[in-house]
Amino acid sequence: MRSDVPPIHGIISYPVTPFAPGTGAPGTGAPDLAALRTLTGDLVEAGSHAVAPLGSTGESAYLSDAEWDAVCETSLDAVAGRVPTVVGIGHWSTEGTVRRARVAARHGATAVMVLPLVYWKLTEAELARHFATVADAAGLPVMLYNNPATSGVDLLPETVAGLARDIPNLTMVKESSGDVARFRALRELSDGALSVYNGSNPVALDAFRSGAAGWCTAAPCLVPRPCLALYEAAMRKDAEADAILAELLPFLRFIVQQGLPRAVKAGLELQGRGVGHPRPPLLPLPEKETEQLRGMLRRLSA
Amino acid sequence: MRSDVPPIHGIISYPVTPFAPGTGAPGTGAPDLAALRTLTGDLVEAGSHAVAPLGSTGESAYLSDAEWDAVCETSLDAVAGRVPTVVGIGHWSTEGTVRRARVAARHGATAVMVLPLVYWKLTEAELARHFATVADAAGLPVMLYNNPATSGVDLLPETVAGLARDIPNLTMVKESSGDVARFRALRELSDGALSVYNGSNPVALDAFRSGAAGWCTAAPCLVPRPCLALYEAAMRKDAEADAILAELLPFLRFIVQQGLPRAVKAGLELQGRGVGHPRPPLLPLPEKETEQLRGMLRRLSA
Amino acid sequence: MRSDVPPIHGIISYPVTPFAPGTGAPGTGAPDLAALRTLTGDLVEAGSHAVAPLGSTGESAYLSDAEWDAVCETSLDAVAGRVPTVVGIGHWSTEGTVRRARVAARHGATAVMVLPLVYWKLTEAELARHFATVADAAGLPVMLYNNPATSGVDLLPETVAGLARDIPNLTMVKESSGDVARFRALRELSDGALSVYNGSNPVALDAFRSGAAGWCTAAPCLVPRPCLALYEAAMRKDAEADAILAELLPFLRFIVQQGLPRAVKAGLELQGRGVGHPRPPLLPLPEKETEQLRGMLRRLSA
Amino acid sequence: MRSDVPPIHGIISYPVTPFAPGTGAPGTGAPDLAALRTLTGDLVEAGSHAVAPLGSTGESAYLSDAEWDAVCETSLDAVAGRVPTVVGIGHWSTEGTVRRARVAARHGATAVMVLPLVYWKLTEAELARHFATVADAAGLPVMLYNNPATSGVDLLPETVAGLARDIPNLTMVKESSGDVARFRALRELSDGALSVYNGSNPVALDAFRSGAAGWCTAAPCLVPRPCLALYEAAMRKDAEADAILAELLPFLRFIVQQGLPRAVKAGLELQGRGVGHPRPPLLPLPEKETEQLRGMLRRLSA
Repeated sequence: MRSDVPPIHGIISYPVTPFAPGTGAPGTGAPDLAALRTLTGDLVEAGSHAVAPLGSTGESAYLSDAEWDAVCETSLDAVAGRVPTVVGIGHWSTEGTVRRARVAARHGATAVMVLPLVYWKLTEAELARHFATVADAAGLPVMLYNNPATSGVDLLPETVAGLARDIPNLTMVKESSGDVARFRALRELSDGALSVYNGSNPVALDAFRSGAAGWCTAAPCLVPRPCLALYEAAMRKDAEADAILAELLPFLRFIVQQGLPRAVKAGLELQGRGVGHPRPPLLPLPEKETEQLRGMLRRLSA
Repeated sequence: MRSDVPPIHGIISYPVTPFAPGTGAPGTGAPDLAALRTLTGDLVEAGSHAVAPLGSTGESAYLSDAEWDAVCETSLDAVAGRVPTVVGIGHWSTEGTVRRARVAARHGATAVMVLPLVYWKLTEAELARHFATVADAAGLPVMLYNNPATSGVDLLPETVAGLARDIPNLTMVKESSGDVARFRALRELSDGALSVYNGSNPVALDAFRSGAAGWCTAAPCLVPRPCLALYEAAMRKDAEADAILAELLPFLRFIVQQGLPRAVKAGLELQGRGVGHPRPPLLPLPEKETEQLRGMLRRLSA
Repeated sequence: MRSDVPPIHGIISYPVTPFAPGTGAPGTGAPDLAALRTLTGDLVEAGSHAVAPLGSTGESAYLSDAEWDAVCETSLDAVAGRVPTVVGIGHWSTEGTVRRARVAARHGATAVMVLPLVYWKLTEAELARHFATVADAAGLPVMLYNNPATSGVDLLPETVAGLARDIPNLTMVKESSGDVARFRALRELSDGALSVYNGSNPVALDAFRSGAAGWCTAAPCLVPRPCLALYEAAMRKDAEADAILAELLPFLRFIVQQGLPRAVKAGLELQGRGVGHPRPPLLPLPEKETEQLRGMLRRLSA
Repeated sequence: MRSDVPPIHGIISYPVTPFAPGTGAPGTGAPDLAALRTLTGDLVEAGSHAVAPLGSTGESAYLSDAEWDAVCETSLDAVAGRVPTVVGIGHWSTEGTVRRARVAARHGATAVMVLPLVYWKLTEAELARHFATVADAAGLPVMLYNNPATSGVDLLPETVAGLARDIPNLTMVKESSGDVARFRALRELSDGALSVYNGSNPVALDAFRSGAAGWCTAAPCLVPRPCLALYEAAMRKDAEADAILAELLPFLRFIVQQGLPRAVKAGLELQGRGVGHPRPPLLPLPEKETEQLRGMLRRLSA
């Protein structure tokens, strides 16, 4: 593994966005900023190496602009510089993404993360201009987020390395395709200039062993300790890492399969730390699945 | 073909959204409402059987809420009840979709069209609740829009027919998968209760012959006459329809392949009816492709 | 529709391959050549415009070379020149395909059909050489068979038209992708030099209306009359075609979904014309599905 | 990692099949059994832990039955029991697969490998019966080979574990999907009863670290030493493994991308160990790619 550790590394925790009980259907109330502050603080105090608000887990797709701004400000204020922050700013339009980049910068984000949401299939020139415009406006380190299943476009390592050559502050890539071979490829093709991060929970350990600098995950909202232990064992190249992963895997697969906002919010409820329902169209985790989750959380905290 | 003709049928024209030259990059200016009014009027006067603002062609994904509202109001005002209107209201959150449904209803839309944009993969129960909530709030006939390539979810005819059984005002389906067999399947599975519309330009004629009530298309922005002639020949079961389609096909394939907002805006410019650039991340149609389009438009208007 | 009718057109019937009861598991006996002769004769006498032995329906993938040769000879002998024949000769190796082409030619086939089975992904140069070598050895008209789901390669209209320009006796294409727009595209791109045939049962009528010269189908093994009636109504441009298709569609969808050899063999058994089981790994149609088929056959022969 | 090492483990080398220069096109001559004997002997003497004739690399898809039998017998005779052998026996029909299993067993194979080639999409019951019949006839340990890109079916870990519960001698799985998370899942779901093997070259090291018992690869035909060194370093949990992989990776990606028979045969020619051309439809590696390969081989042997 690389000796140089980039400023953002280790366990990068993704909070959900709490919603206050409103007068309408569950989940349609305003973001519950007090609960968000508590949850974010919990993530820092549990030892997260970084916090990443407004990712997919944070249901950013379902927030209005004003809500997005409030969640951004509150999250960064709650972290209060204790660890680095990476704010998810993906939006369909370049303008919308730029606007969010500026809000994040103004509130003191360490870096921004850009998922290239693709309504109309973009040409290479359009993708390049989009990233360049956003990176320029952000004036912060940019993490390109590749998640073909969500965004509708798969940015191959060659493409990402090419973008990074042209955009000086595009220095990080979060790869969520689950294809472990890409971590090495991205390092190689960028001559080590890109730091790579893993966004696919089931390959958490494989990614560290292939050179990933960090693991982007919502799991620490519920079980921070084994996530941190996995990272530390992986860094020590200790075989214990395999045993920790074996314990975590059923849980990691479960939260991915059920959808992170549904699963994490149900888990917080089970832990007496309820933050309300996910926002419609999402529904709460069904009862049967909630019981499965209860068993998993009990085993992991035993 | 069916003898009963539903109120919305024939050529359903999709306008682009003009943007005024702003102070920033091309396409970042505000919607040019005067130009939108002219373009919309042109579509009605050319003989469109219906007008559908704020579809994918209308770059609705790149508009702020305030811009969306202004485009909706202006479009409906410009149509002024001369033909039916179908307003695209797709949004990631149920709330956002409901809000748009209400705006459309308030300004007098005949119907609303809902593309189920899927950020997190939705369960069947979530999809059903989303459509039911939106349809209830709209209080207007709802056109479900299936476009797997854009939305990330493919609603099969069985699923659509099931939704329609439970939601009384879900009475129309726009199918853009290009799978012609679905038009018959949707009619059959709903016992004729659903009117089906085709959103895939290259199968325009096949769709009419398989029972589609209408063709949802941006082509009339540039070449309304052959589109209308195709519909009329298809209704008369006249073999001339094949000849008209043969002339239109290279153009239809071209605008689909290049992306409708890029291609239609370039074409309006060539016709001396310029409405500005598409909004970033989209770029204008490149020069070489614009020359190809010039040739096609010349041949079609000869 | 085109005025020139190519020699092979209309209903092109695909027989299954009967297997004699052997000493081992059902379906493992030798091809039952007497039953094959009867079934083939039935297809001709029912009015098929052509017969196509050794297609996918004929389970050619599960035959040894010697069995393949015997089925080829018997089928062509049973047709006895009364209608044209198209023999499926697809094989992984070029040599194996050439060998089959020669056997088919020696026994008097009218044409051969080549599915490009792709074990290793082939380059364009490899595909071109494969078809050229086979066409040259065949010395007969060649029908290129595009079926991406089975072969693992999708030959787009542009590619097929390019191959046809270089290979004089590649004059026919069977398109089974179900994409109706390809029938027109193939005619257009080849300036009408290619005759196109439809291999996707559910779009049978749409294909004729888009210029397909024939329908390649196993359905006439069980219900020849409505298949022929559909073709005739389509040729007359009679709206009755839609009614015939509506009656046939549930049956056509069923046999495709269940797999043609399983469904056709179960249907022959129900009609008292049993030809044994499909060969393993295929299993006979399960009981429940056989009952569904019984109902469909009853309705279609009423 | 597991303490129990199964009898088949480590570097499992896949030979190509040499073809003698014939009178026809290159590659159409008979298998060159003397050259096969030499190549196989080389693989054993270089330290391979097992040899696997008649895999995809061995162009088994392009061999006649008689050729297949001769290659099987010669390969096993050349290994002469010095290391275990795994013979690829995949065939479309159950009968054909059984026949090959028996030939392999008669000539003393240690195990057989079954790729479920799927011409017609098989039901679960059909897949289960196919594997059970073949395993029963083989009377040897069976390695199920999952390679969705080639076979057209993706056998998920749950399915494989279910099959293994019912078939006592189905004790090994070769996973070529490249999805590293499956190695752990297969071990877990089978309670460790299944030994898992990796068939995707680019994830060679990740697979060992996730519990794969062996690496199935054609690379040792050209560069056995670094392959063996990678395995040994991985077993010692030595960080040197990452450096070895980094050196090998461009070569591994290249041979996968170019197709193993093309690339390996070109490489043997460059090393003065020529074994003739691949069989048509395959063509030899083009000149430009051959030059790239020359550079890679030079660097790896430096």
